Amino acid sequence: MQGIWLENNQLQLRTNIPIPEPPPGEALVRVLCAGVCNTDLELKRGYYPYTGILGHEFVGVVEQGPQHLVNQRVVGEINAVCGQCRFCRSGQPTHCENRTVLGIVNRNGAFAEYLCLPIQNLHPVPENIPTEVATFTEPLAAALEIQQQVQLRPDDRVLVIGDGKLGQLVAQTLALTGCDLLVVGRHQDKLAHLEARGIKTGFADTVTDRAFDISVECTGNSEGFALAHRALRPRGTLVLKSTYAGKLSLDASSLVVDEITLIGSRCGPFAPALELLAQEKVDVKSLINACYPLADGLAAFERAQTKGVLKVLLEMS
Amino acid sequence: MQGIWLENNQLQLRTNIPIPEPPPGEALVRVLCAGVCNTDLELKRGYYPYTGILGHEFVGVVEQGPQHLVNQRVVGEINAVCGQCRFCRSGQPTHCENRTVLGIVNRNGAFAEYLCLPIQNLHPVPENIPTEVATFTEPLAAALEIQQQVQLRPDDRVLVIGDGKLGQLVAQTLALTGCDLLVVGRHQDKLAHLEARGIKTGFADTVTDRAFDISVECTGNSEGFALAHRALRPRGTLVLKSTYAGKLSLDASSLVVDEITLIGSRCGPFAPALELLAQEKVDVKSLINACYPLADGLAAFERAQTKGVLKVLLEMS
Ligand SMILES: [Zn+2]
Ligand SMILES: [Zn+2]
Repeated sequence: MQGIWLENNQLQLRTNIPIPEPPPGEALVRVLCAGVCNTDLELKRGYYPYTGILGHEFVGVVEQGPQHLVNQRVVGEINAVCGQCRFCRSGQPTHCENRTVLGIVNRNGAFAEYLCLPIQNLHPVPENIPTEVATFTEPLAAALEIQQQVQLRPDDRVLVIGDGKLGQLVAQTLALTGCDLLVVGRHQDKLAHLEARGIKTGFADTVTDRAFDISVECTGNSEGFALAHRALRPRGTLVLKSTYAGKLSLDASSLVVDEITLIGSRCGPFAPALELLAQEKVDVKSLINACYPLADGLAAFERAQTKGVLKVLLEMS
Repeated sequence: MQGIWLENNQLQLRTNIPIPEPPPGEALVRVLCAGVCNTDLELKRGYYPYTGILGHEFVGVVEQGPQHLVNQRVVGEINAVCGQCRFCRSGQPTHCENRTVLGIVNRNGAFAEYLCLPIQNLHPVPENIPTEVATFTEPLAAALEIQQQVQLRPDDRVLVIGDGKLGQLVAQTLALTGCDLLVVGRHQDKLAHLEARGIKTGFADTVTDRAFDISVECTGNSEGFALAHRALRPRGTLVLKSTYAGKLSLDASSLVVDEITLIGSRCGPFAPALELLAQEKVDVKSLINACYPLADGLAAFERAQTKGVLKVLLEMS
């Protein structure tokens, strides 16, 4: 089969990858569509070591697996877990000590014709969600993780920093809570997507220092982090939603003096994400800039790295 | 009056400071005893800008103030607040935007014969608490702040890093919760104080990585912080109890991947601290290494900076 293979920081389109054979407990999924994520770009830049097929945002059809899933469109949670370790047993499987992660850690990913995942990871996609839209389930779930970690109150003032793919989904999900939301970014055209949905936006100079109860950092750069920090009131909460290349320099004394809480946030719940997409409460279509066939996967990566681009999809057939 | 004055990173014993006149709403307190804290040492090193009399841990006797307090032994909360700003009005006076802080920010401190503080800041000291012991009320309250911020469960595995003044009080207060506690430090003699109270201790190599639910950083150095971080399980909580000179370098990606919560922690509640001292549930006497008269205040500072020393007190009369 074809697949986008990463090795030694080089991307290749390989055409002779064997179709995987699902081990016991896993299903074989024929991929329909997959999204290019910032994490894919970071893996390519070598921020984390990985060799294999990239990609973890996908929709596919089950070809081998349990009766009730075969021929169903599915999305899949990306952490494949052991079920045995202390984190699995304590109900925190996304933190499994022995996990592999689709297209990220020791498990071939979704930029290919087929992939394997544990059966328990798969969620059928409701009929009324178009395949391209369902491809956003994984990043949308990650955005919803914030609400699992932080108790939002209706009068909370919330700042989202970043108007990219992640910031867009974070902002849309937070807006649904009715909180008092401001999104700051650097791109008028990207902010316009949010303005169109009634969300307040602005550039960084819109931010009043020490005015926000909660800030969510979605840029992955140190300027974004610094803004997220200084925008917070004392005892405010800073949610780190992006990964960062290298180390971040932190004014720890000001964290202590202002008793700030800083929370790292990663993968989230799929079921409510699918629910939001089925009910069309979140708009993802306007975030899609381009679709490429898998054979043009390298061009898709180039495009995804271009300034001003939000989501690039790969379509497998 | 005499006082230990800091100006341009120089400590002086001044003998001609006028006795302060309490403004409306404040009391005049004759200081009996005061403790030298790491914050005092950091102020002297110039980590934060301050000019004036140092000192914020004290016991005194009210000489001018309301009837019910005059001639009473008191301790005092160190943040003098405006009562008007959004933080005061929202029940978070320790974060008042207009606050002065005794011996730390724009308010003369306790290393002198007299000080002034708002009447509402003063707490009478129960009869049975010796003056030297009551001097620990402020740092003990700061240690108790952790329990205001983090919900501790009896089976939580908690790591305290640091066997200094702060670590000792943090460890003793956490031990009272019945959590599964380990304290790591670098000084066998300091750890012995805790061992004597039945608290498990060790050197850094005792720590099993990713084993703890909660870690409390009480060293103020980057090695301590790194240990506090790597000792935590995924979704664990790191409490920053020390201030830090300069910036701290943080592996933010690992905070995100492991969904760690980092909480800054500062001043705490005086009433439960006095209660613990009155009930002798916390031992502070064994932490006192030396008492100096105010006139020997500079020598007291030298002693407080000496390796192996825990608490140095100044006695005013
Ligand atoms: Zn596991
Ligand atoms: Zn105030």
